[in-house]
Amino acid sequence: MQEPLRLGLAGLGTVGSSVARLIEQHGDDLAARIGRPVRVTGISARDRSRSRDFSTTGIEWFDDPVALARSDATDVFVELMGGEDGVALQSVTTALEHGKSVVTANKALLAKHGNRLAQLSEEHGGALAFEAAVGGGIPVIKTLREALGGNRVSRVYGILNGTCNYILSRMEAEGISFGDCLRDAQALGYAEADPTFDVEGYDAAHKLSILTSIAFGTRIDRDSIFIEGISSIEPVDFAAAEELGYRIKLIGVAKRAESGIEQRVHPAMVPKDCDIARIKGVTNAVAIDGDFIGSLMLSGPGAGGNATASAVVGDIVDLARGARTPPLGRPTSSMEPYVRAKIQKHAGGYYLRLNLPDRPGAFASIARRMADAGISLASIVQRNRPAGAAPRSELDLVQSVVIITHETTEEAVRGVLAQFEAEGDVHGRPQLIRIEEF
Amino acid sequence: MQEPLRLGLAGLGTVGSSVARLIEQHGDDLAARIGRPVRVTGISARDRSRSRDFSTTGIEWFDDPVALARSDATDVFVELMGGEDGVALQSVTTALEHGKSVVTANKALLAKHGNRLAQLSEEHGGALAFEAAVGGGIPVIKTLREALGGNRVSRVYGILNGTCNYILSRMEAEGISFGDCLRDAQALGYAEADPTFDVEGYDAAHKLSILTSIAFGTRIDRDSIFIEGISSIEPVDFAAAEELGYRIKLIGVAKRAESGIEQRVHPAMVPKDCDIARIKGVTNAVAIDGDFIGSLMLSGPGAGGNATASAVVGDIVDLARGARTPPLGRPTSSMEPYVRAKIQKHAGGYYLRLNLPDRPGAFASIARRMADAGISLASIVQRNRPAGAAPRSELDLVQSVVIITHETTEEAVRGVLAQFEAEGDVHGRPQLIRIEEF
Repeated sequence: MQEPLRLGLAGLGTVGSSVARLIEQHGDDLAARIGRPVRVTGISARDRSRSRDFSTTGIEWFDDPVALARSDATDVFVELMGGEDGVALQSVTTALEHGKSVVTANKALLAKHGNRLAQLSEEHGGALAFEAAVGGGIPVIKTLREALGGNRVSRVYGILNGTCNYILSRMEAEGISFGDCLRDAQALGYAEADPTFDVEGYDAAHKLSILTSIAFGTRIDRDSIFIEGISSIEPVDFAAAEELGYRIKLIGVAKRAESGIEQRVHPAMVPKDCDIARIKGVTNAVAIDGDFIGSLMLSGPGAGGNATASAVVGDIVDLARGARTPPLGRPTSSMEPYVRAKIQKHAGGYYLRLNLPDRPGAFASIARRMADAGISLASIVQRNRPAGAAPRSELDLVQSVVIITHETTEEAVRGVLAQFEAEGDVHGRPQLIRIEEF
Repeated sequence: MQEPLRLGLAGLGTVGSSVARLIEQHGDDLAARIGRPVRVTGISARDRSRSRDFSTTGIEWFDDPVALARSDATDVFVELMGGEDGVALQSVTTALEHGKSVVTANKALLAKHGNRLAQLSEEHGGALAFEAAVGGGIPVIKTLREALGGNRVSRVYGILNGTCNYILSRMEAEGISFGDCLRDAQALGYAEADPTFDVEGYDAAHKLSILTSIAFGTRIDRDSIFIEGISSIEPVDFAAAEELGYRIKLIGVAKRAESGIEQRVHPAMVPKDCDIARIKGVTNAVAIDGDFIGSLMLSGPGAGGNATASAVVGDIVDLARGARTPPLGRPTSSMEPYVRAKIQKHAGGYYLRLNLPDRPGAFASIARRMADAGISLASIVQRNRPAGAAPRSELDLVQSVVIITHETTEEAVRGVLAQFEAEGDVHGRPQLIRIEEF
């Protein structure tokens, strides 16, 4: 039996504590699998005095995570503090510069600094592993980086944010508003006090940027992602989706397009009977299309201390066994720059919900404009007020119409919507949800 | 750039040809990912004269795969010939004994000789990789062996045979008999001329035995699997399943039970809305329950040349990068013997379809026997002939009754079925399908 692999664990929140507990509980089994014991030998966290749900006996305390990262007693630095800069960046950089391996669950850090950190890892010989950064416990990084190494990937997509999926699942099931649902999610601990990061799509975008890099061999470019959140989705959109055979999901999609690689995070109408449509609640799912594999899907817990700890320890097991995979699936020297496909060139169907003035010819006018723009309509659902009922408010003077287009381009759709607004053809902001076929 | 990794490829059927084509098509990308070229330098197949869909220029031909396996020009021996003994066993053994790494898709070989081959791999230092042996292109071996290394697995289960799933999916959708469906599957190339190996559950059992070993750290024991095939399933069972909220799937399940580890392959009633129920056609799916991960599911193409080649090349990429994971997830020295849980102790619900004589008290009699055996009934569906209709044949003199039991044991159910038959309470063979909850 070799010397123990010594872990320096920075960050003892939900995930960090679960990692320590896992190693405590399964230490013997891990040693048997690996042929070498794994021990947490140093820890660092914000509050030293807090009681922990694992034994800290014999574990050295560090006030400064950077000191833990460079300590001679640390073989692998496990960064679970979070944050895209600051002490997380500083300590991870330090560990790598000292030739130590790093395991992290920090998607924000990787989305922003991943290219440079991967290079540091190569230069100094320590590994950089981050299975837990995307999809919680789902081994999607390993799958893309290793198992699908023989494929030319054409698309990777999925449900990458559990908070959004939870909110959308409940809105759909209960017909309640986004705001009510968000408050409930916050009360239950499924959404943060400041939910912007999740509900506006940034968290999913960070994760997508990492997947894109590995899938397509391009440098991480989180700033080139088209992002829309879910806060504008209304109960009426779910009702229309149901009627038209769709569900609404916040998806992340990266795919090869003519002008480059599309990276998008936005709510989408997905066919009711597809696998992605069936993913409910806080579950995540990632699907990968490749030229030899065809299509593969992984689904499981996208968050939570234990599931994320499972991914972190999976990485530790790999390192302990001596695995050295390039962090982004290939040496940074052979990665290509990311070329962003223009969102205006995005081709697909669209769901549009428009409020039209209740006057003769209102629909004919928008239909003509769409025809002129070369947009052909697949379905139209018009909801009039009950025949003979008098208008009760100004709102009753408009009629809501839902349109599903055949495949067209973002450019064409945006063009006609701008016309509608300029010419007063519609009341208020039109709703636009892209349709995604799998 | 290092020296090329030289592959000796034995077997040029559908999978072998796809592997050669993949490497030909993606050679540059593979070299970039790995930092080292990968080349097929030697091949061996049954018929030298057959034309191939990849270029054989510069590739040495071997009449004898064993010679290819031990050739100094072979770094990695890729065995895609199939067969649980014979030349496959001989050549894989030879390669390992010469310290070479082996990649194989041969589940039959591994199910029978995997323990010894894993040991040979350890003794001589060559790797033994076999992602393609289970679930085609789905990276389930990697997931269990590496990604979930921190978990204590409690259950692994799935749809492991595409032929059976295709047949059951069509029987369900079209209400046709097993025989008709099998003939169609044979015509379409989804079933072999001799389908026994697939439809009687042996193929799924071989795959399950490998998963069990890695999931539970026990030696492979393919002879301790409880196996039932799908040939006794009738259209009426699908009709009853539909009515009761189930689908019928051939599943493989391995789980920890009180008396050991249960390994079962059999048709099962699975709740209609569970993930496994949704897997249609030749798709495979594997789900894993672990103490930290919770539950994870992988689904994708379970067979086919290209998908299987994707898995084979994934293994080659790992080897080329220098990965050395113990073949069965831990050193053979720290594996435990497999202790078989008694199938008689299997606990679960049961679907029973019985033909009762059409006489007063027939059902009361079987209901009493079941109550006496401590079996409680969850649902009963009795199908009488239309009221007033005269019996048209002897068959009309029996009534078919479908019973769903609450959780009970195999022992109790088998006990009452034996009684029914002994006492003439039923006509013909009762149908028994286990219910599996997820």
